[in-house]
Amino acid sequence: MTDFSPIERGDWIAAPDGLVRIPGGSVTSPDGYVAYGATCGLKVSGARDIGVLRSLRPTRSWLMDTTNALPSAPVRVNRTRDRSQFSAVVVNAGIANAATGDQGERDALAMAEQTGLLLGVAPETVLVSSTGVIGEHIDMDKIGRGIIAATDGLSVDGGTSFNEAICTTDRTLKGGAFVLQLPEGDIRIGIAAKGAGMIRPTMATMLAYVTTDAPLSADDVREITLAAGESSFNRISVDGQMSPSDTLLVMANGAGAPLAGASRQVCGDAIAAVCRWAAIQMAKDGEGAAHTVRLGVHGALDRDEAARVARAVAESPLVKTAIFGRDPNWGRISQAVGQALAVAAGQVFEPVVVIDGVAIADAATVMDRAEYDIEIGLSRGNAEYALWVSDLTHDYVTLNAEYHT
Amino acid sequence: MTDFSPIERGDWIAAPDGLVRIPGGSVTSPDGYVAYGATCGLKVSGARDIGVLRSLRPTRSWLMDTTNALPSAPVRVNRTRDRSQFSAVVVNAGIANAATGDQGERDALAMAEQTGLLLGVAPETVLVSSTGVIGEHIDMDKIGRGIIAATDGLSVDGGTSFNEAICTTDRTLKGGAFVLQLPEGDIRIGIAAKGAGMIRPTMATMLAYVTTDAPLSADDVREITLAAGESSFNRISVDGQMSPSDTLLVMANGAGAPLAGASRQVCGDAIAAVCRWAAIQMAKDGEGAAHTVRLGVHGALDRDEAARVARAVAESPLVKTAIFGRDPNWGRISQAVGQALAVAAGQVFEPVVVIDGVAIADAATVMDRAEYDIEIGLSRGNAEYALWVSDLTHDYVTLNAEYHT
Repeated sequence: MTDFSPIERGDWIAAPDGLVRIPGGSVTSPDGYVAYGATCGLKVSGARDIGVLRSLRPTRSWLMDTTNALPSAPVRVNRTRDRSQFSAVVVNAGIANAATGDQGERDALAMAEQTGLLLGVAPETVLVSSTGVIGEHIDMDKIGRGIIAATDGLSVDGGTSFNEAICTTDRTLKGGAFVLQLPEGDIRIGIAAKGAGMIRPTMATMLAYVTTDAPLSADDVREITLAAGESSFNRISVDGQMSPSDTLLVMANGAGAPLAGASRQVCGDAIAAVCRWAAIQMAKDGEGAAHTVRLGVHGALDRDEAARVARAVAESPLVKTAIFGRDPNWGRISQAVGQALAVAAGQVFEPVVVIDGVAIADAATVMDRAEYDIEIGLSRGNAEYALWVSDLTHDYVTLNAEYHT
Repeated sequence: MTDFSPIERGDWIAAPDGLVRIPGGSVTSPDGYVAYGATCGLKVSGARDIGVLRSLRPTRSWLMDTTNALPSAPVRVNRTRDRSQFSAVVVNAGIANAATGDQGERDALAMAEQTGLLLGVAPETVLVSSTGVIGEHIDMDKIGRGIIAATDGLSVDGGTSFNEAICTTDRTLKGGAFVLQLPEGDIRIGIAAKGAGMIRPTMATMLAYVTTDAPLSADDVREITLAAGESSFNRISVDGQMSPSDTLLVMANGAGAPLAGASRQVCGDAIAAVCRWAAIQMAKDGEGAAHTVRLGVHGALDRDEAARVARAVAESPLVKTAIFGRDPNWGRISQAVGQALAVAAGQVFEPVVVIDGVAIADAATVMDRAEYDIEIGLSRGNAEYALWVSDLTHDYVTLNAEYHT
């Protein structure tokens, strides 16, 4: 059985057979990638805060980013590039370079320019990310020295330092690597991700960079990225807030064994499973979170209704405080279901709620678990939807009332 | 100047000239109303928990209730009645009689039947409300004895005891009375309201009963009720949650001076102002609230956009914790604005945020105030919207994590 620690519920990942964790693996575990995380002084703590990741071989890539209408400067710059041609990443933490106007855009462009120059690649192939405080300009002197230090340090052993450099309020590192055993041979998948707050379905302050040495076409990478993002980072909710900086980049450099069609499908499933693994870690590390819940809705009229109900329940502060308080409060779930359906429903019905297989009325002890399932049955149709949600705790309030601008 | 205590910001009420607070007034201050709140044992504390209010004269009335798709049993029963014909109210606190199926509906009907019988009026003219825990049946033995006690106690001095009986987690009594001085003579408006949690625009766990002795037609009362509800109880947000029990009832019994057309307009404005006065008290008493903010959005493309942005900002836990932490965090407001506009916006712009007339960057000391304005300018058009919001505090989490089913 695959080791998905620190997730207790391996069944949440739905991994294909043959996917095995690489101990100590990282975004540089797939063949042909180097990375490094350096310190440039944007984080007050003095921790690593600037990272560079690159493929040493040509890649196919795809990019998913935020649907926030006021995207950060790096997101706007990345959107002017060919999404299938990214082969390197430069990212800083501490300042989000969001809501920084034209100057912010010039700064993001300069980050790509300098990194491309130092790596000897076209700046258009360098993806830029920034995460941290919104509304402040980044110090380009610090960034400039940081990019030199990060590119100087690039190595196949640098994946973990890169992952450290992209974190902000994260309490845990969200990254690692897996090997997928296929008839044609092994391929490797690595991921470096961050995210703990401002997280809701349809992305959030989350960054995730996936590397693989699988030989995939541009079409394959695009389809795999969209499917993987939809079933992972778009399915987590910490506080219902959508960040202007969200980014998921998948790069495939073809250093691994050639794949037949069936194996390409398995490879896509594996990349989606790796993304779910990282996404659930984000929910688990949600700011102040004490519990992580997979919230499933079934019996909805259509998928939109199922998703609307799941999100309404996931974002209800009354439900989230009940999860924190280990209170099997069916009434609050019923209220949120009714709010999501609003006007639409018409006839009166009562949702059936089951927690880890136990009727909610008897589920108080189940709610002591750190991870469990809540299943909501609507008896209206056959559509379903699920997402992962963290609870609302005193620590969330403390973190966010005290994290000053 | 009219005394609107406990609201500090009288400018939020927008009252017409001639509206004067009646010291110690209540829902029985208008001519021709009696009320009483008794104890029937549904509240563990032993506090008053069942109330009856009636007009001694024929009334015109109108009813606004929840848009939650799973309305409580009393709401479903009230909807079978003629909304213009209510002349009495029976209400209990402690159990919401929501999500209680057919038995709940029979119980609500029985409450109206018994009250009508004891008052000698048709049960169809008795509005029923229940507020409290969702998903439990009410004890009809206790309710039966309580209705007898409440109808026995009816008097012109019973308005305050009635108001006490409808409270749940409220820390303050939300009620009182005003006299409106018109050329034709005085008319009086009384209100008894409750609500502190599960509150969002489009009503919440809020109950509000308005009495007036103004002589208004059925059409007048309907129009006044809809306008008053829209500009008051639909404009407050504590936690974004919409209750299955929300009810606003306005009754007019015509015991006061006859009114000319212009005075009927002023009377409508006064009823709306009284509703805003009570609604802002609900936001101020929002569960755990430390600050109350009037959140205005202007410069939107249309009213829908202005409302969508205002609600997104009002419901953002990141903004609400920043208000609690007195943090002038423009970035979190900008992020919520961008989330509300999503995909729609297209071009990049930055919202301008002003707090009590001061640019947000300089507003840290303003945020020490218990009540203040946040104005968000979008520079996209001419539409505007405003609502009142409370902050997200440790006390909110404590109250809702510990208020067990």
